[in-house]
Amino acid sequence: MAAKANHVSCGIDLGFRADIESTIDSACGEGYDFVCLDIVNPEKKQTFGEADVGHKVGDDTRPDFMLGSQEWNTLVVGKLSDWISLNSENHYANAASEEALLQELHFASYLSLPAVMIRVDSYDCANLARLVYSHIMKSHHATNMWIHMPVSANKDTADGETKSQNTWMWWNKFRMLCNQHNKISLALEITEDLPDPESLKQWLGEPVRVVILNTSIFLTNKKGFPVLSRAHQHLIMQLFRLNSQFVITGVTKDGMALKTYQQYLEHLYQHRPCPDQYDMFAKGYEDYLQSPLQPLMDNLESATYEVFEKDPVKYRCYEEAIFRCLADKATVSLEKDPIVLMVLGAGRGPLVRAALSAAKRAETKIKCFAVEKNANACVTLNLLKRTEWVDEDVTIVSGDMRVWEAPVLADIIVSELLGSFGDNELSPECLDGAARFLKPDCISIPASYTSYLAPISSQKLYNEVEAAGALDPDKPKITAFETPYVVRIHNYHELSPSKPVFTFTHPAEKAENENDKTHLKNSRQAELRFSMPCDTMVHGFSGYFHCTLYKDVYISIVPETHSPGMFSWFPLFFPVFKPVLLKQGDEIAITIWRQCTNSKVWYEWVISEPCNSAILNPGGRSYTIGL
Amino acid sequence: MAAKANHVSCGIDLGFRADIESTIDSACGEGYDFVCLDIVNPEKKQTFGEADVGHKVGDDTRPDFMLGSQEWNTLVVGKLSDWISLNSENHYANAASEEALLQELHFASYLSLPAVMIRVDSYDCANLARLVYSHIMKSHHATNMWIHMPVSANKDTADGETKSQNTWMWWNKFRMLCNQHNKISLALEITEDLPDPESLKQWLGEPVRVVILNTSIFLTNKKGFPVLSRAHQHLIMQLFRLNSQFVITGVTKDGMALKTYQQYLEHLYQHRPCPDQYDMFAKGYEDYLQSPLQPLMDNLESATYEVFEKDPVKYRCYEEAIFRCLADKATVSLEKDPIVLMVLGAGRGPLVRAALSAAKRAETKIKCFAVEKNANACVTLNLLKRTEWVDEDVTIVSGDMRVWEAPVLADIIVSELLGSFGDNELSPECLDGAARFLKPDCISIPASYTSYLAPISSQKLYNEVEAAGALDPDKPKITAFETPYVVRIHNYHELSPSKPVFTFTHPAEKAENENDKTHLKNSRQAELRFSMPCDTMVHGFSGYFHCTLYKDVYISIVPETHSPGMFSWFPLFFPVFKPVLLKQGDEIAITIWRQCTNSKVWYEWVISEPCNSAILNPGGRSYTIGL
Repeated sequence: MAAKANHVSCGIDLGFRADIESTIDSACGEGYDFVCLDIVNPEKKQTFGEADVGHKVGDDTRPDFMLGSQEWNTLVVGKLSDWISLNSENHYANAASEEALLQELHFASYLSLPAVMIRVDSYDCANLARLVYSHIMKSHHATNMWIHMPVSANKDTADGETKSQNTWMWWNKFRMLCNQHNKISLALEITEDLPDPESLKQWLGEPVRVVILNTSIFLTNKKGFPVLSRAHQHLIMQLFRLNSQFVITGVTKDGMALKTYQQYLEHLYQHRPCPDQYDMFAKGYEDYLQSPLQPLMDNLESATYEVFEKDPVKYRCYEEAIFRCLADKATVSLEKDPIVLMVLGAGRGPLVRAALSAAKRAETKIKCFAVEKNANACVTLNLLKRTEWVDEDVTIVSGDMRVWEAPVLADIIVSELLGSFGDNELSPECLDGAARFLKPDCISIPASYTSYLAPISSQKLYNEVEAAGALDPDKPKITAFETPYVVRIHNYHELSPSKPVFTFTHPAEKAENENDKTHLKNSRQAELRFSMPCDTMVHGFSGYFHCTLYKDVYISIVPETHSPGMFSWFPLFFPVFKPVLLKQGDEIAITIWRQCTNSKVWYEWVISEPCNSAILNPGGRSYTIGL
Repeated sequence: MAAKANHVSCGIDLGFRADIESTIDSACGEGYDFVCLDIVNPEKKQTFGEADVGHKVGDDTRPDFMLGSQEWNTLVVGKLSDWISLNSENHYANAASEEALLQELHFASYLSLPAVMIRVDSYDCANLARLVYSHIMKSHHATNMWIHMPVSANKDTADGETKSQNTWMWWNKFRMLCNQHNKISLALEITEDLPDPESLKQWLGEPVRVVILNTSIFLTNKKGFPVLSRAHQHLIMQLFRLNSQFVITGVTKDGMALKTYQQYLEHLYQHRPCPDQYDMFAKGYEDYLQSPLQPLMDNLESATYEVFEKDPVKYRCYEEAIFRCLADKATVSLEKDPIVLMVLGAGRGPLVRAALSAAKRAETKIKCFAVEKNANACVTLNLLKRTEWVDEDVTIVSGDMRVWEAPVLADIIVSELLGSFGDNELSPECLDGAARFLKPDCISIPASYTSYLAPISSQKLYNEVEAAGALDPDKPKITAFETPYVVRIHNYHELSPSKPVFTFTHPAEKAENENDKTHLKNSRQAELRFSMPCDTMVHGFSGYFHCTLYKDVYISIVPETHSPGMFSWFPLFFPVFKPVLLKQGDEIAITIWRQCTNSKVWYEWVISEPCNSAILNPGGRSYTIGL
């Protein structure tokens, strides 16, 4: 069932077939990867009083020896009997349905089927959810539950009108009742009518494991082959990004060959938009949680420098910023002395290279200091000084900018100390430590940076955090939720444009008062409010930064202003401990604090509106950044 | 600080006093139990830039040797400096306030003060909550945080009007941000104007540890002594029920002696309404969680029988029901044979006694069987047969009604198998087991029973469940929340009248179908909806029963119809795992299932609207009742 690389994984729904082996052979021959089959023969029905209670697992069920266990496990998705209904008025018919449902689920587990398809056709699904959740809790098999929902549905009201149903609420109810269990995934049926674009976005934030396409939504093109409308094509393209699998269901039209549907999907897949540079770089990292770097506590590895030096955008922007700054300095300055430019945190030299290149363009002489606390990187810097920079005025300083005794004062300082959330790798504290050796009119590149947050819905990320928490059973469960994560957020719904949080400007103004301590100066708090575009679950907040390097030269990972192709930063994800259900138009507020002592910095955060959560990471108990 | 029996515990707020020892001596001489004192001398102030940042713990702070640690720990409640404000526009003034606040909290812990009074004066209290919560999380001292809030407040709006503030929302925000920690309790200030009765009910559901009375709200009576208005008196009487302590604050009026306030409160306390029979019985059990009885699995103890036999109401109602039933039987029956009456679950004989007494009143002959599975109780029954019932036709049967081979068929069966939630001690399953030996027109007393549920707000009960979960660290935290508890719910707010859940009628109709199993017949599901009367947190549901013994003779623990003075049952509390914040007018729905197998019965339940919780007790994983 695993999707093959460069190929769309597509199954076909064949209902009940007695001759399983030949059925599978012929479906595979038509290009399909798997088949969906009824677990029980639907023609053998029983009645119970007035109610049709269908047929149970028993003598007439297909025997397990019809296929090898490897085939059951990779080629067959089970379908529950259609007659099973838990919303009957007849108590005994319901009870019989429940019993049959559990028998079919057990039988699917017994066959080691990879998944069972379970159809939800109304908001009234609590009893179905209870049975499925109890089944998952009781058994230790690997069978997944594919919850089959339409992307939109209409209901006839009493007065003869049809009313459109919010089927996302069905899905949300079902999965929340089942505690967002990761064995519950979504089998989304694309209907002929599509909901508005905002509602479609909402589905794209969900774990769409399978996309179900009924043959009835296909059109026939001039050559007589099945095709989809533009709107459907557009949606399918977006679903490809989620690595969803597909299932074709319904009767084939006008004697069309089965294989034409699979071939058309494969055709669409091969013509999906090319991923951009950022997507290429991020491939394999989608929704994968990483702990943020602790560059002050840990030295970076050479390979890490190597990856980030390849960013095609960042150093071009730095060079442009330094060039403009040097040009401005040359205009106002009457001095003949070379401009003192210090690279604070030089790593393996990319900013030194950008500075030297900018100076050449500006036809300005600079005296360059490259300060780097990682002694390993200084080996590379010294080599560069003896080779590449032999004709330049570059001094390599192996040491921490916060304690270095500079021999001269700086005209320009250049640094790249930003984390995904701007200040979260302690750029403010580092640059404050350099304040001792700046000329009064010293310019800092970057000049300022601002962090941003946006509320997001993403069961995928929430489950990842929960899984991270389960790795260390000695820590309380909440620890994993009190940590922000660097992550290429992918399967999510951003519920609002992000809003600015904390701003730092450099060189920083001196503190107002002599008694004042640096750690007070860099503490911050902010409350941000967002209005919800639709009914939704909020699972956390995505964090970004926007950084002004010099005047209008900036780098940014805020979605609306993202520097195109710059891949050095993935967003930072702040989880919430309990997802929050909100209705369209409801307001949510996050309150976030940046707290500092002389030895560490941390964030605390909470959904402060609606107010039913506890503050996360109180006193930095689960996560701090060391100075 | 512990409240003395039969005495109101009352403290006095004296602000800052240099001469602590004599201050305390004189306050105690005036009848007060403790004093509230400023931690830091408020006259020694500092300024910070423009802002007043007050004085910090330091040389001028009162030294610890002024009192013994026993006195600090029992007689003094600390007050934070008034100038501390975390909502200043000035970042540095806020930072200085934060530092001073933490210093004062640390100093209070150092002195082992039993409590610190912390004033909240707006909804904008997130930063204060953060500091208090971080402090509690970091330290292991026992100091409680008394969060001082007014019962009502007005705010002047921009256009010159005053708008009433919902101060309960301040409290709710503060305690939720602090994770409802049990070191956070409420110091409720009674204001001159009281809010409407519904809002007052809301406060009575909160952990009101202390009631603060400003001398300004007192009136002066004809004799020149301080008294409270009728409305205030009424409120104070209700607060006495919560065992709240009191604090008098403000300047004494017209040279009135300090002690007169304490004397007046003591006077009110001595004239509080007498507790009724039920309250007397429940004394000491308030909000104390008990696991429901498992009478089928475990045999009751003699002392348990003894307590419940003393119920002044239950057996009177049973006797009346039996009397009416015998009278009706006598009217329609032409037979001369005695009426066969079987007591199913006879215990130590109270229902046999009621039956014999009813038969005497009805002048009817009965043949009585007393069936009891607890062999220890049968010893008592046999003794009664030989002594008290020597002239009666009573047969003692030591055995389980579900397997007993009855020698005759019953005209009437009488049983008392109900739990707090009606069917939760498996009365339906037991009586179904007796169906084999009933005449076709057999009458069951009770004839039917219905369970009821109501949503409640009670931080107290929620914290008790959480504490119960912490007792066994080997079990997952959720286990304690997947168990219903028998409890005298006391410090709570019932948010709506209760609604009926499951009904059982006896003798039960035969199942429709031969294939049918008893365990299907007694399974049930229900969804109940409630509209909220105010903004609130729902912490769980209280469960009750209403039972029709015969025709209009009933027993009930549903609040609206509670049989007066009947004390045999406390309510059943169904917790929710995550408290749910709801606004006035919002709807909440609970879906609850009664599930059965051949060996056990259990409930599963969930807040199904708004839908953001997982089903509790799936498959009976945490709690079942054995058959």
